[in-house]
Amino acid sequence: MNKLYVIKIGGNIIDDDVKLQMFLSSFVAVEGRKILIHGGGKLATKLAAQLGVEQQMIDGRRITDAETLKIVTMVYAGYINKNIVAQLQSRGSNAIGLCGADGNVIQSHKRHHTSIDYGFAGDVDTVNTGLLQSLTEQGINVVMAPITHNKEGQLLNTNADTIAQEIAQAMSALYETHLIYSFEKAGVLMNAADDSTVINSITPASYKTLKDQQVIYAGMIPKLDNAFAALHSGVHRVVIGKAEQLQELIHQQSGTSIVHE
Amino acid sequence: MNKLYVIKIGGNIIDDDVKLQMFLSSFVAVEGRKILIHGGGKLATKLAAQLGVEQQMIDGRRITDAETLKIVTMVYAGYINKNIVAQLQSRGSNAIGLCGADGNVIQSHKRHHTSIDYGFAGDVDTVNTGLLQSLTEQGINVVMAPITHNKEGQLLNTNADTIAQEIAQAMSALYETHLIYSFEKAGVLMNAADDSTVINSITPASYKTLKDQQVIYAGMIPKLDNAFAALHSGVHRVVIGKAEQLQELIHQQSGTSIVHE
Repeated sequence: MNKLYVIKIGGNIIDDDVKLQMFLSSFVAVEGRKILIHGGGKLATKLAAQLGVEQQMIDGRRITDAETLKIVTMVYAGYINKNIVAQLQSRGSNAIGLCGADGNVIQSHKRHHTSIDYGFAGDVDTVNTGLLQSLTEQGINVVMAPITHNKEGQLLNTNADTIAQEIAQAMSALYETHLIYSFEKAGVLMNAADDSTVINSITPASYKTLKDQQVIYAGMIPKLDNAFAALHSGVHRVVIGKAEQLQELIHQQSGTSIVHE
Repeated sequence: MNKLYVIKIGGNIIDDDVKLQMFLSSFVAVEGRKILIHGGGKLATKLAAQLGVEQQMIDGRRITDAETLKIVTMVYAGYINKNIVAQLQSRGSNAIGLCGADGNVIQSHKRHHTSIDYGFAGDVDTVNTGLLQSLTEQGINVVMAPITHNKEGQLLNTNADTIAQEIAQAMSALYETHLIYSFEKAGVLMNAADDSTVINSITPASYKTLKDQQVIYAGMIPKLDNAFAALHSGVHRVVIGKAEQLQELIHQQSGTSIVHE
């Protein structure tokens, strides 16, 4: 089986142009098949403020009303996605920017929740591996924006970590898939303020302990839940670490590995 | 040679949701290979006003400063493009939304002009027919936003009529290409206020006369210049007419045909 790297880049890197440029150069240097998934960063929040559209967050998830959906579609699938593609093209990497509606790559449904109305938030149903494989085998690097659709004409805002996980899972049927969550920190840290306290590996058992001890909390919990879900669904390896150390993450010299045991 | 329809839809249709939905249903009903190119409409102008970014137009072309480029990238390649794709998907048409940077489909350069600084406006250099053909032959309908790039990391705002023309010309090497400019009017009119005064066909000679008589003026001139340029560069047929009459335009029962003689 050929290797495929599914690489998620976090919002804080996108907000920092120097770090983003460094990351994109590292991404181009990664040999072989690769797909990039990007988050949104603070640009959507900033644009919403400029337009006077109030933003509500619950557990780190944006409540997506109609105006907010318009904003995230513009910012994620438009501004961020196309700028990343143009930057990759300038470095000789043949990138193509897609959202989940394009080629019906990711179909989702509007989130059902008993007590919270998340608005136009999408939970993933299916990943169309055919087009992703066809583009990848043509040497084209797909760059995914975290917007999906329900195949009934509705775009839906979808968590980028989840998209990375779902793509990695689906592509595991075709490739030895490595899922890399790259963000501003060196990995999962014992002390969130100290980048030297990286936990090298986390098993399901140690994850439970780390949560009980509140070493892992808040935004890291959905990220790690996604990582374990991917691992349990056929993804070969999941690594979490620093965007500027992408090469080291790929070569297992850095970051936190999520492992079975 | 197989037929290919390159269909441009104008901004005024995009601004009118009822007309847009009708047009998209007609587009889905067009049998065979087809590529859709959309303009921008008033949404970018409206967003610029909301954000306090002043807009300057010269001869119907927007002067694209850095803030305006950000706005048109968001609106054209994000909001409009992805909503059209989602609508087409809901009608069972497998669409994919691209801008010129994606897959390096359209490479351009920043416009040079002796007296006017158009800002980040792109003039087309090359169309990458390979990816367009590969997607088309997979039964995927490409939906192009009027944003291109210079392969040096710079996105550029590019006239959608020109993109339609350049794609039609380039694809003429591979297909019997029909270029259809669809907009809010029934064609080129003798009397701009009366949709019943459609000129059925225009030759290079009658074009000159119609311009001299000022029957054709303002925004129609670059549109017709593009149409004749396409015709002189291998495009099989160019038709200009009403978006709601797409089927009739395709079957030569409506609109203005641009012909050699």
